[in-house]
Amino acid sequence: MLHFECDYACGAADVVLKALVESNSEQHCGYSEDERCERARAIIREKCAAPDAHVHFVVGGTQANLLVIAAALQPFEGVLCAETGHINVHETGAVEATGHKVLPLPHKDGKICAAQVREAYEKHIADASFEHIVRPGMVYVSHPTELGTLYTRQELQELSDTCHELGMPFFVDGARLGYGLAAMPEVDLPFLAKVCDAFYIGGTKVGLLFGEAIVLTSDRIHKFFRYHIKQRGAMLAKGRLLGVQFEAILKDDDYVTLAARANGMAQEIKQAFLNKGCQLYSDTIANQIFVILPDEVCDRLGEKYAFSVWEKLGEGRTAVRFCTNVTTAREDVDALLSDIEKAF
Amino acid sequence: MLHFECDYACGAADVVLKALVESNSEQHCGYSEDERCERARAIIREKCAAPDAHVHFVVGGTQANLLVIAAALQPFEGVLCAETGHINVHETGAVEATGHKVLPLPHKDGKICAAQVREAYEKHIADASFEHIVRPGMVYVSHPTELGTLYTRQELQELSDTCHELGMPFFVDGARLGYGLAAMPEVDLPFLAKVCDAFYIGGTKVGLLFGEAIVLTSDRIHKFFRYHIKQRGAMLAKGRLLGVQFEAILKDDDYVTLAARANGMAQEIKQAFLNKGCQLYSDTIANQIFVILPDEVCDRLGEKYAFSVWEKLGEGRTAVRFCTNVTTAREDVDALLSDIEKAF
Amino acid sequence: MLHFECDYACGAADVVLKALVESNSEQHCGYSEDERCERARAIIREKCAAPDAHVHFVVGGTQANLLVIAAALQPFEGVLCAETGHINVHETGAVEATGHKVLPLPHKDGKICAAQVREAYEKHIADASFEHIVRPGMVYVSHPTELGTLYTRQELQELSDTCHELGMPFFVDGARLGYGLAAMPEVDLPFLAKVCDAFYIGGTKVGLLFGEAIVLTSDRIHKFFRYHIKQRGAMLAKGRLLGVQFEAILKDDDYVTLAARANGMAQEIKQAFLNKGCQLYSDTIANQIFVILPDEVCDRLGEKYAFSVWEKLGEGRTAVRFCTNVTTAREDVDALLSDIEKAF
Amino acid sequence: MLHFECDYACGAADVVLKALVESNSEQHCGYSEDERCERARAIIREKCAAPDAHVHFVVGGTQANLLVIAAALQPFEGVLCAETGHINVHETGAVEATGHKVLPLPHKDGKICAAQVREAYEKHIADASFEHIVRPGMVYVSHPTELGTLYTRQELQELSDTCHELGMPFFVDGARLGYGLAAMPEVDLPFLAKVCDAFYIGGTKVGLLFGEAIVLTSDRIHKFFRYHIKQRGAMLAKGRLLGVQFEAILKDDDYVTLAARANGMAQEIKQAFLNKGCQLYSDTIANQIFVILPDEVCDRLGEKYAFSVWEKLGEGRTAVRFCTNVTTAREDVDALLSDIEKAF
Repeated sequence: MLHFECDYACGAADVVLKALVESNSEQHCGYSEDERCERARAIIREKCAAPDAHVHFVVGGTQANLLVIAAALQPFEGVLCAETGHINVHETGAVEATGHKVLPLPHKDGKICAAQVREAYEKHIADASFEHIVRPGMVYVSHPTELGTLYTRQELQELSDTCHELGMPFFVDGARLGYGLAAMPEVDLPFLAKVCDAFYIGGTKVGLLFGEAIVLTSDRIHKFFRYHIKQRGAMLAKGRLLGVQFEAILKDDDYVTLAARANGMAQEIKQAFLNKGCQLYSDTIANQIFVILPDEVCDRLGEKYAFSVWEKLGEGRTAVRFCTNVTTAREDVDALLSDIEKAF
Repeated sequence: MLHFECDYACGAADVVLKALVESNSEQHCGYSEDERCERARAIIREKCAAPDAHVHFVVGGTQANLLVIAAALQPFEGVLCAETGHINVHETGAVEATGHKVLPLPHKDGKICAAQVREAYEKHIADASFEHIVRPGMVYVSHPTELGTLYTRQELQELSDTCHELGMPFFVDGARLGYGLAAMPEVDLPFLAKVCDAFYIGGTKVGLLFGEAIVLTSDRIHKFFRYHIKQRGAMLAKGRLLGVQFEAILKDDDYVTLAARANGMAQEIKQAFLNKGCQLYSDTIANQIFVILPDEVCDRLGEKYAFSVWEKLGEGRTAVRFCTNVTTAREDVDALLSDIEKAF
Repeated sequence: MLHFECDYACGAADVVLKALVESNSEQHCGYSEDERCERARAIIREKCAAPDAHVHFVVGGTQANLLVIAAALQPFEGVLCAETGHINVHETGAVEATGHKVLPLPHKDGKICAAQVREAYEKHIADASFEHIVRPGMVYVSHPTELGTLYTRQELQELSDTCHELGMPFFVDGARLGYGLAAMPEVDLPFLAKVCDAFYIGGTKVGLLFGEAIVLTSDRIHKFFRYHIKQRGAMLAKGRLLGVQFEAILKDDDYVTLAARANGMAQEIKQAFLNKGCQLYSDTIANQIFVILPDEVCDRLGEKYAFSVWEKLGEGRTAVRFCTNVTTAREDVDALLSDIEKAF
Repeated sequence: MLHFECDYACGAADVVLKALVESNSEQHCGYSEDERCERARAIIREKCAAPDAHVHFVVGGTQANLLVIAAALQPFEGVLCAETGHINVHETGAVEATGHKVLPLPHKDGKICAAQVREAYEKHIADASFEHIVRPGMVYVSHPTELGTLYTRQELQELSDTCHELGMPFFVDGARLGYGLAAMPEVDLPFLAKVCDAFYIGGTKVGLLFGEAIVLTSDRIHKFFRYHIKQRGAMLAKGRLLGVQFEAILKDDDYVTLAARANGMAQEIKQAFLNKGCQLYSDTIANQIFVILPDEVCDRLGEKYAFSVWEKLGEGRTAVRFCTNVTTAREDVDALLSDIEKAF
């Protein structure tokens, strides 16, 4: 079975694995207070052009999400997000388990816009029963989104401006950030560090064994963040593993270079389906592609390839997702392209 | 600086690192539903002589603790534990953050006994205001304890019998279980699987990069446990890393063999201090030793060695902890032994 | 200002106030364990034709909702309800504060149906990522609903059957139950006790100073319910006040008789607006009426009457709600009817 | 049975009941935003000599405690209190259910002192693992305490000074405050408003049917407090009931006058036991008295009087509590005094 169903079916990128092996015999203090983490933090601050930013490492994306949200909100506040947002649908209520309501907004291509945020905020304020309603306390988006789409620089700028005008932190989930950075360079790390109060540089899905680097430009969220990390069980004892991996993937820009390669292969797969006359479920330019297939094609490809069934559309059609990642083998993609050619 | 302050200053044991490297190019489905995790689960069930036990893998000990406790308790129940218990003092209120009170009991050498459990339970039941009081809902102990001590087989049997008579799950935190198994073979894995409703085989402190294998003999706690894991942010995307590591350390008994070696070196260090006339703060036979040192000896050794300051005792004396672990280098221990000789 | 904006602008019904005064000098043990509460429980069980039902009293509806839900669900479960449901929109995230997600379903006239429940459940079960998604664990409806509408006997029966087939408790919020019982007798207390695992007989909005009587036919939810009550701050010290009030309003059927009178007056108000050619926002037969008014009529009536602005519809039109309740004075309604006549 | 087991076995003081009856036909907006609550707030501010203080009303003491604590603390913070504190032992983990650890300190006569607070804070700060430990975030004491004792003006001043020096809110639970004010006038309302960030004037145990008036001098805790109240199910729909009752008991100082009478009767009971040679379990000057009785005296008095069994001391002796309250009848006390005379 060749795996295209997600971006974490693989091990680590070579450069990351090599760094883990080479650093294995080093001794460091625990909990990411070591010099390897410090070096990775310095690289991240430099790449973000944000010398005052704070960087915290955690193992996974759900941890990053629930930690930032629980640290940013007061108990009676909720987080605005697209109804398709990962925190709303695929984290088993992790945010609610910290006591906060997720406040879903209708999405367009997996995205929400500044006007929706303003409307939600103003509707709350204007309601005579406002104290009986969860207060919108922050905004969460992901980039790329759950539908593989990307926010433009202007869209993020507008979201950020609106959030800050209304006193709400703006948080970008970057679980697949590398693929976004590679596909749309206008949204780069310095820009994100400028417009976000918090975002993270996803590692798990972009070449690391595991790890997300949370960048906090908000001193308030940062101040006691390590207490939150420990309280939620997210403080890795051998924290240096996170520093070692992030340093390895970031220092020579492999994070973006390898992601660009993955994006390219995903787009080849998308084109192969388009050539067969398939419709897209969501039109994307990064490492996830969403296409609508006849059920018999699904069955045929499913014998050899793992991919995600996204939505049963009825009438013999199914929306599916194929992902590449930084470790995807060229020959696996070639095999898939060839089999797509034959599957219709 | 040579690190003896904890058992996670190191990387992985060679056998573990090798397995990670060799399996890196494999493709697996995510979230520990892969065949590598299945193989590790099979080994654990076999070593526990518990063919019906359920095995779940998580990254760290605080996760394991809060997950088992949150899954086992009803909202109004609390968990009985030694006042020195890790969940009571060193997890930033992780258990309380899930809504449950930790119910501390006085300890003796870091341990609690069956009679204390019964007394707490009966006191609750007998109180006319029982509904106004947190109900004791389960018992948590660690083996080895926070003070490095070990429960005897009989003590654990009595705790288990009392818990089960009173309808409470019995949970053993095995963050350092390897050292316990090596130091006191009468408490082995089959015995633990027999007396516990839940326990875990600690990996982070016993040769893995990270990972704890939670063994559940309670079908009730197991039934929806994966929902809990995801909700608390503890489900590792590349879950196979946990399976690969546990298989590597367990399959040829390195888990215990390497721990025994570490215990031996810790005991040499203890003996070196005893030879100098030092008093022990806690008398242990595994990989942590606790000794009371004159402050000037602390300062002298502190120049070259990292160790834990456990408690300032006043009058120029400090209780300190030295730990070894499965990767501790013989030459580091020799250096320490020699410097102890010279430090007084 | 005459108050029609809600059903709790008043004091208690005379019969209730009288009972409070007469019982004031009695001495009782606290926390609703007294004989006055026992008498009220006996009356409720009898009126429900449910000799084995358990009755718990709390002060308010949000308490009743969060208590039943927190007691019924496991941590990773959520509660299905109409998107307009009180727990979803008007309780400041009280359910989420207990850790549970509210799972909103599209409504029709404020109601959801059995087919929606089944679809939500089956979609969850069928999803390959089901453990990453909040599990639908129970169903919440209110009767009357937030839009003043009523479920038919058949609709409730179908919801109940589906819930029980799928293993989910069925919970009916009866904050305004009296008005529902009076307006649609086919849904009576014995029927509710038969189809619900939990429901409550609302007192605050139906003639009491305060108080909701939670009826639990589920032994599982009941078993430790008093611990939950205390833990959430919902156990009234002078609990007998709840027993005294419920006995007073229930024993001679004033609960329904007085509600019927209130319904009648509300319907007169509705008819007065219909006579003026107004459209209804929601068509109701109980004590809340929802009508769409020209903004200038709103302004004119607003000088003398308090009513709820439900939704600004634009183009000079506003949906508003008028409520009557068991203490509404005939002369206040007459004044309003006369002023409606003049307001257009 | 004559009830001396608690201070809430009764109804309301006459002046309170009268006000409830007289105001019953008034119409008011809900949720304590009405003019009756405003009048009560004005009286409280005046009696506290705190024109800028904020006053919120809730129904019960556990609500008041959990609300203030949840509003004041950050998620990783805990609340310091005496190990005998109500929040630590008699609220079914209500504070933990909001996610916060209660941090118990050894008590002396039910009290803690400023030096203990400082020590706890400094120990936390000095610990190398401070981020792994719950941060002391506020201090809770009750006045009178659970053992019926009272803090002196100086003790409270020192606690307050220490809290504020260390940046921690200082919170006084005044569930029985009236009895404290009457028994030790040096601690009066203006003083409490000066030294506390939050305290409450208990009504339930001091002549009201129910109700606690929370006084917040901290703008930070106040700012969004009504959201908290609603979220925790503590916002009374007919909120004017709280305003009416507090106005009635406070406006002519009945709150203190009636409490003084109750204190006097409690002290007579204490003296009667002392005359019989009994030892006190806790020596008090307010409305609760704690005395150690031979078991046979307990049995004899228990036939006619309800009182609290506080602790079984063994060897045939039991510590018990007798309470009076503002509605206690003179003849009931006389009967008890007479029966004490005969019981030995």
